[in-house]
Amino acid sequence: MNDAVSITRDLVRCPSVTPADAGALGVLERLLKDAGFEVHRVTFGEPGTADIDNLYARIGTEAPHITFAGHTDVVPPGDEAAWTHGAFSGEVKEGFLYGRGAVDMKGGIACSVAAVLQYLADNGGKPKGSISFLITGDEEDISVNGTIKLLKWCAERGEKFDHCVLGEPSNVEVLGDCIKIGRRGSQSGTLYVDGVQGHVAYPHRASNPVPDISRLIVALSDEPLDHGSAQFQASNLEFTSVDVGNTASNVIPGQARAKFNIRYNDNHTQESLRALVEERLAKACGNRIRARIVWEYSNSNVFVTKPGAFTDLAVSAIEEVTGRKPELSTSGGTSDARFISGYCPVIEFGLVGQTMHQIDERTPVSDLEKLTKIYRGVLERYFG
Amino acid sequence: MNDAVSITRDLVRCPSVTPADAGALGVLERLLKDAGFEVHRVTFGEPGTADIDNLYARIGTEAPHITFAGHTDVVPPGDEAAWTHGAFSGEVKEGFLYGRGAVDMKGGIACSVAAVLQYLADNGGKPKGSISFLITGDEEDISVNGTIKLLKWCAERGEKFDHCVLGEPSNVEVLGDCIKIGRRGSQSGTLYVDGVQGHVAYPHRASNPVPDISRLIVALSDEPLDHGSAQFQASNLEFTSVDVGNTASNVIPGQARAKFNIRYNDNHTQESLRALVEERLAKACGNRIRARIVWEYSNSNVFVTKPGAFTDLAVSAIEEVTGRKPELSTSGGTSDARFISGYCPVIEFGLVGQTMHQIDERTPVSDLEKLTKIYRGVLERYFG
Repeated sequence: MNDAVSITRDLVRCPSVTPADAGALGVLERLLKDAGFEVHRVTFGEPGTADIDNLYARIGTEAPHITFAGHTDVVPPGDEAAWTHGAFSGEVKEGFLYGRGAVDMKGGIACSVAAVLQYLADNGGKPKGSISFLITGDEEDISVNGTIKLLKWCAERGEKFDHCVLGEPSNVEVLGDCIKIGRRGSQSGTLYVDGVQGHVAYPHRASNPVPDISRLIVALSDEPLDHGSAQFQASNLEFTSVDVGNTASNVIPGQARAKFNIRYNDNHTQESLRALVEERLAKACGNRIRARIVWEYSNSNVFVTKPGAFTDLAVSAIEEVTGRKPELSTSGGTSDARFISGYCPVIEFGLVGQTMHQIDERTPVSDLEKLTKIYRGVLERYFG
Repeated sequence: MNDAVSITRDLVRCPSVTPADAGALGVLERLLKDAGFEVHRVTFGEPGTADIDNLYARIGTEAPHITFAGHTDVVPPGDEAAWTHGAFSGEVKEGFLYGRGAVDMKGGIACSVAAVLQYLADNGGKPKGSISFLITGDEEDISVNGTIKLLKWCAERGEKFDHCVLGEPSNVEVLGDCIKIGRRGSQSGTLYVDGVQGHVAYPHRASNPVPDISRLIVALSDEPLDHGSAQFQASNLEFTSVDVGNTASNVIPGQARAKFNIRYNDNHTQESLRALVEERLAKACGNRIRARIVWEYSNSNVFVTKPGAFTDLAVSAIEEVTGRKPELSTSGGTSDARFISGYCPVIEFGLVGQTMHQIDERTPVSDLEKLTKIYRGVLERYFG
């Protein structure tokens, strides 16, 4: 039973809550080996983290090389008693397949595997180029023993990818409404303002950092970082916390700090963004306010796959199956696509995200069938 | 030995760290009884607080009635090993009397008792009116079982005070530089701003309270409450803390809060002050920002003893002994004078405050002698 519904069900029945694999990669390994893939199971780990199973499988040796990426790990089910059908049952009822990962993203992986197996069966068992699967078990948690290391491992073996389809649930309302072609970068930091501690009755002997950090927060929040770009909405800086922790009502505190997060578009690099914020801070401080920013480490850089031949063929395949012309979107949070983008152009297209991470996560069976057809259409066009 | 140095030493040797009395009031009771005072020891307490000893002593039955107020309790000595002379030794070395309370304010009490005893001895044992002592053991800590209750107890007995001298260390640098004739009021509050929690990647679905509370902090900090009055410096609002406590860098928080304290002068009452701040807040919020203030209970109202005959005679007595014309000041923090001001005009004049609450608290012996002379001069003028 190599159809998408069966594969999804087999995957959902493995309770692969990060870092557990629970047999999920074995389901894929069997199917791909049977279809002639060279399959590698690669385990990564480092001190203080759990060892994680990953899988890389390839068929064909020539270019062009398209890879289907994804993750078999899932977020915890929450209160299992609250599920209408078992969180790891993969049960099909009234046209829906239920279970944790049905949408994010075992269903997407199952559709890509089913599409590839059909394509190979219909084309003499070999693609006119190469097809691979890049599947990790470490995406939902800290993501250190997954895609980053698997890509590096592939590169060291000489693997070269030309294009990637990441099967994350990219659609917002209905299958076919959205392809993600990029994501904004994410950069967090903490702003510190130093004053001079003192007694509230003698403010001239103190320097209160609370109004000063407030001035800086207003200045940095109010001035837009940009007005968007061809593929992106405007960058945005949000202060997520401001804290002093002073419980003495008669004491002017000596320091205040505020945390912020920036989602930024391709008008910036991480370096130019930091420089811009530092420059605005210096201006807002003038000669009087003593402030500094401590930047957090971030590997969530902005990336975008520019619209072109590759996105066109995906749009065409989606339109053919769904009758919808998908939006090429760069909105939303981060995914492993940001790591893959360092190696080849990547688009994200999968199921509809509405129930992901929720109780009763589920996908219409018809969406599994349609998504399989779409991936099949991508392969026809890619090698056509 | 009824001189100020001996009485100070006897008082300092009682380690009367609040709430302990350690014999301090007994020292006064003995001296005053011997001089013909009717002495009352009154104990106050309430659930959750320690019982506190207080003393009220009066000689004479007629008006005018002057009362000397003070407290025998002291703050803890800190690291006793760090003291040059024992914290409760009352040792006299090189012209200084050392010990916790020497300045704040056992020395001041001792000078008033010594001055009164001399005055009575020189005037046939009776004043041309009444003299009393209003001494509490609960000033340095929570101040609930001290002056407030002692004043009420006196009022219920029919005691009526015409004027009060509170012997707190009012002088800043040198004896005679400052009489306190009032204090600003103190009022604390917490400002809450409600936003809408959300994900930083979707700010249009959230409402961030951090920049909004920052705008309100700036608005309330920047606009002066007034420009001072005849007896007072300008009122002042200080934000002492601002807190959110959000540790998730991808979450826009739902609420922010900021604590503030206002020191206010006689341009305001507590009620008018609160109304003014609320009005400015409403203006700064406009129709958009949802904010509210929770006011803290406060019994630290503003008070002032207007310059006149009573302050004039104190100034004259100080000038005669020290050659200095004291400033009539309303600066600094709160004291029990704010409670006494509800019953009669009160001035604060005592020793020099420089070493109060510190290691090696000490007073020049010569200041004890001069302050005794000043109090004696006040009595001569008051009954003259």
